[in-house]
Amino acid sequence: MTDDAPAPRRRGRPSRKAAAEGPDTRTRILRAARTEFAERGYDKTSIRGIGKAAGVDAALVHHYFGTKDEVFAAAVELTFEPALVLPAVVGGPPEALGERLARFFLSVWEDPGTRTPLLAILRSAVTHEAAANVLRDFVLRRLLERIAAELDVPDPTLRAELAASQMLGIAMLRYVVRAEPLASAEPEEIVAMVAPTLQRYLGEA
Amino acid sequence: MTDDAPAPRRRGRPSRKAAAEGPDTRTRILRAARTEFAERGYDKTSIRGIGKAAGVDAALVHHYFGTKDEVFAAAVELTFEPALVLPAVVGGPPEALGERLARFFLSVWEDPGTRTPLLAILRSAVTHEAAANVLRDFVLRRLLERIAAELDVPDPTLRAELAASQMLGIAMLRYVVRAEPLASAEPEEIVAMVAPTLQRYLGEA
Repeated sequence: MTDDAPAPRRRGRPSRKAAAEGPDTRTRILRAARTEFAERGYDKTSIRGIGKAAGVDAALVHHYFGTKDEVFAAAVELTFEPALVLPAVVGGPPEALGERLARFFLSVWEDPGTRTPLLAILRSAVTHEAAANVLRDFVLRRLLERIAAELDVPDPTLRAELAASQMLGIAMLRYVVRAEPLASAEPEEIVAMVAPTLQRYLGEA
Repeated sequence: MTDDAPAPRRRGRPSRKAAAEGPDTRTRILRAARTEFAERGYDKTSIRGIGKAAGVDAALVHHYFGTKDEVFAAAVELTFEPALVLPAVVGGPPEALGERLARFFLSVWEDPGTRTPLLAILRSAVTHEAAANVLRDFVLRRLLERIAAELDVPDPTLRAELAASQMLGIAMLRYVVRAEPLASAEPEEIVAMVAPTLQRYLGEA
């Protein structure tokens, strides 16, 4: 909460100064939204709560992001930001694509800083239709299309989604259900087992 | 609710007759538990509600199953009953094991009668530590060990779990998030794409 903005206003309507702060305030709200959704879940998070956590009025949250679903979408996008480097992961020696993807995916999930919001998104999507819609229509579709555009195989989007499903299933069993032996396996052991699966879906090498 | 038992008692302590009904009452409670967990989720399901739905006193639910977690475990086991034929699926021509497993798994999820309680278990496990523990310790472990026992590969349990993770991920994207193109793909199209993945994990043929 100790941000760069000096003494953020905690209550009242946004001042002209707050509005003039522009990008910083927007970022602060977005980070607060991500934390709120991650800690409270989709259901219990409110625009008002996000505003409070960001030290701004709820009206300012509305002003920047609109409805709760739209704030959620923006928070999900922020969480998926690391995934935006995926095209860079995809572009590289094609015969080691599966290995690069598997290693990248596990590194994102092994880091608690990215794992916590990802778990929150997963929980929200599984329990709330609205959250599932956001994940599907705003994030997953664009991500899959972006990866598919880099692939030189038939049905690239379906193949990208099957690769995503393999990684999602591993995340479910390793980090959510924590089922053994997957939960305690070394990341590199998993990479070695899973890379050929991703390679077959995406590379057909 | 129109079961074979004539005029089930809706309130009061279990009569000697109810106790004498034994297996039928137990089955009725178990089915009611499965329906309650599927429709209300882990959180909102209570022993009292299960008793009410089964037309018996809550004390009888306790008598047969113990705590809420234990009822949940029994309901999960009932839901996974179709999976008990898995060893039969596993035992068969080894070079087509992946194809048989993929087709069996999709048939279970395509059937709304089995899909609904499976979705409920998934939702409960993702949102409640206790439900995840039950799924992990009572069901998944036994299931994976049973399949692993049929396999002739190194690390059979890890491989069985990786196969399970691939199928779970597909279930998540196709039936929960309903992300395209996987959501609308023909089951046989998915079988054709996924069978080699399962075959590689489990068969090493």
